[in-house]
Amino acid sequence: MKNLTQIVPSHVRGIAPYQPGKPISELAREMGLEEGSIVKLASNENPLGVSPKALAAMAATLQDIARYPDGNGFVLKDAISRKYGIAQSQIVLGNGSNDVLELAARAFLSPGTEVVFSQHAFAVYPLVTQAIGAVGVMTPAKNYGHDLDAMLAAITQNTRMIFVANPNNPTGTWIDKQALHAFLSKVPNDVMVVLDEAYDEYLPDDLKSEAIGWIAEFDNLILTRTLSKAYGLAGLRVGFLVANAAVADMINRVRQPFNVNNVALAAAAAVLDDEDFVRRTRELNDAGMKQLTEGVARLGLEYIPSYGNFVCVRVENAMEVYRKLLQKGVIVRPVGNYELPDFLRVSIGLESENARFLQALEEVLQGR
Amino acid sequence: MKNLTQIVPSHVRGIAPYQPGKPISELAREMGLEEGSIVKLASNENPLGVSPKALAAMAATLQDIARYPDGNGFVLKDAISRKYGIAQSQIVLGNGSNDVLELAARAFLSPGTEVVFSQHAFAVYPLVTQAIGAVGVMTPAKNYGHDLDAMLAAITQNTRMIFVANPNNPTGTWIDKQALHAFLSKVPNDVMVVLDEAYDEYLPDDLKSEAIGWIAEFDNLILTRTLSKAYGLAGLRVGFLVANAAVADMINRVRQPFNVNNVALAAAAAVLDDEDFVRRTRELNDAGMKQLTEGVARLGLEYIPSYGNFVCVRVENAMEVYRKLLQKGVIVRPVGNYELPDFLRVSIGLESENARFLQALEEVLQGR
Repeated sequence: MKNLTQIVPSHVRGIAPYQPGKPISELAREMGLEEGSIVKLASNENPLGVSPKALAAMAATLQDIARYPDGNGFVLKDAISRKYGIAQSQIVLGNGSNDVLELAARAFLSPGTEVVFSQHAFAVYPLVTQAIGAVGVMTPAKNYGHDLDAMLAAITQNTRMIFVANPNNPTGTWIDKQALHAFLSKVPNDVMVVLDEAYDEYLPDDLKSEAIGWIAEFDNLILTRTLSKAYGLAGLRVGFLVANAAVADMINRVRQPFNVNNVALAAAAAVLDDEDFVRRTRELNDAGMKQLTEGVARLGLEYIPSYGNFVCVRVENAMEVYRKLLQKGVIVRPVGNYELPDFLRVSIGLESENARFLQALEEVLQGR
Repeated sequence: MKNLTQIVPSHVRGIAPYQPGKPISELAREMGLEEGSIVKLASNENPLGVSPKALAAMAATLQDIARYPDGNGFVLKDAISRKYGIAQSQIVLGNGSNDVLELAARAFLSPGTEVVFSQHAFAVYPLVTQAIGAVGVMTPAKNYGHDLDAMLAAITQNTRMIFVANPNNPTGTWIDKQALHAFLSKVPNDVMVVLDEAYDEYLPDDLKSEAIGWIAEFDNLILTRTLSKAYGLAGLRVGFLVANAAVADMINRVRQPFNVNNVALAAAAAVLDDEDFVRRTRELNDAGMKQLTEGVARLGLEYIPSYGNFVCVRVENAMEVYRKLLQKGVIVRPVGNYELPDFLRVSIGLESENARFLQALEEVLQGR
């Protein structure tokens, strides 16, 4: 295999794959546990499960699954277009927002160009950068969040793209609108800014993004959204980006023609209109965030205040605590790969799941 | 937008997007037709629809769709591994075989490297090549099929990959096993050969591929398979590749962590074991191929003998015939973009669909 490994470009050989949250089925196999006894708070999933409207829409597609999806995604683009007041030509659909993040990178980057992102920001930014052979430039975080001034200072003539997550995963930090708008005004207009708003639905109404309205002002702005979080469709893989139509056209050229499956297209169009489901999701999250943060504070632990549906809790010997929680059937997320080796990221679950985590954590910390 | 278009790499700007078969819903919208009145023979889909086993497996996943898929695809890889007698480490799962074709390209190619494929071969090969900025080298077809000698002669020091489709889409041509094995023996072992077997299930038993058994002999061999054709899951997007484990490891590095959705993973694992469904699919296809080819011959038309679930029929003024068929609610596929401007590709449908196409074609040819 010597020859073959040698012909793989070095930037591909150097990729350290993404480390997902451990699936329930995998832990069940490994530990001989019942799947129903396991609590997973590891992947920022929606603990409410699936919206009834999405469920009905999914079920209606199954008989027709031998047909290819509509590669243009008319029905879903129509729903997005109406909800956000934009043209269909401004939308690129993706197999999860991971896909649109990668497509944006592949449309604008080539080997040797530079990409700026923050320390502790979402792992997919450096991954898609490296897979192309572009050069990732990571700026140090400030209070666990993006240091926008440092990011501006990192821009060079070779910079083609900047990734900004707001709120950020895994830290839950948030950048206020004025600061973000000022930042966009200072980025050269030939540097694309990808603003990842995967967790926007969890923000209170007065803090929610207004960036869709900024696209007319900033041609170089790309917004990404996901249906995997508040909309509860992680297993289906659907996300989208919104940009200037000329930018969207370029990105659509590197998109696989049938990148979003039929079930996802139908479910996403249905759930985007299900405001009740998203409202209940946020209420549950608000209550669960209070329960979890008060609970860990009671155990004497610090945490990073979070605007998402997860929170990073500081614990000594985090990997050991992670493994002991696994033995008790509780899956959380170690974030050593995010340069946060002293933290565990815990997704907000149902009240009973949060309680189960807090109980298990208390036992582990007490050596039980 | 001047600046932004300029920063897009020229190979991306130059991409002419894939032209999919027209979806039934789109034609219905455009022509004001009832969806149920439209016959689509344009995308090599399975006219039997969905396997009952797949349907049950899909339905069982819907309630849990708020969870991310298993990024390692354990259950599906286990099913593939048992069916084909290979290790799970040799498998890469994809969002359709389009995805694994692209992943193989992205793992091994970089700008300026060369890729060999045949005239009239599947459109995704030049697309994935160009999206990377690699150089596509198209060899002239021989009797509408791959000219393997010409492909060998096209290999240079810069060649990193060769795509071979067997059977080929859209022409339906087929390469016999001895010729293919001899070809593989002559390809330098640092040039990857991607053997696309999307239509293998339609071959008679004695012609079916044995190439999985050749991987031990040829480290540089990558086989791709799809669940979109005989397995009837086009709408779900699932395919896979099989290769040497070290090759699969490299390709997995550029794979999006959750590239295959949960519904697809479950349905694919179920249908791979549904031998009865695949047998019925092939029997229907054999009968439909006879019906269609005899029918077009009766109309005095030539066709390219096909080993797939589709056939290319030579008609004068193919685009005009295509549009007139659309007006009659019959969707077939023009293949001018495959350098076959005098042909229409017709997928094999149900007996009634084939009859409807033949009737409509006869009317169009008679100017009715």
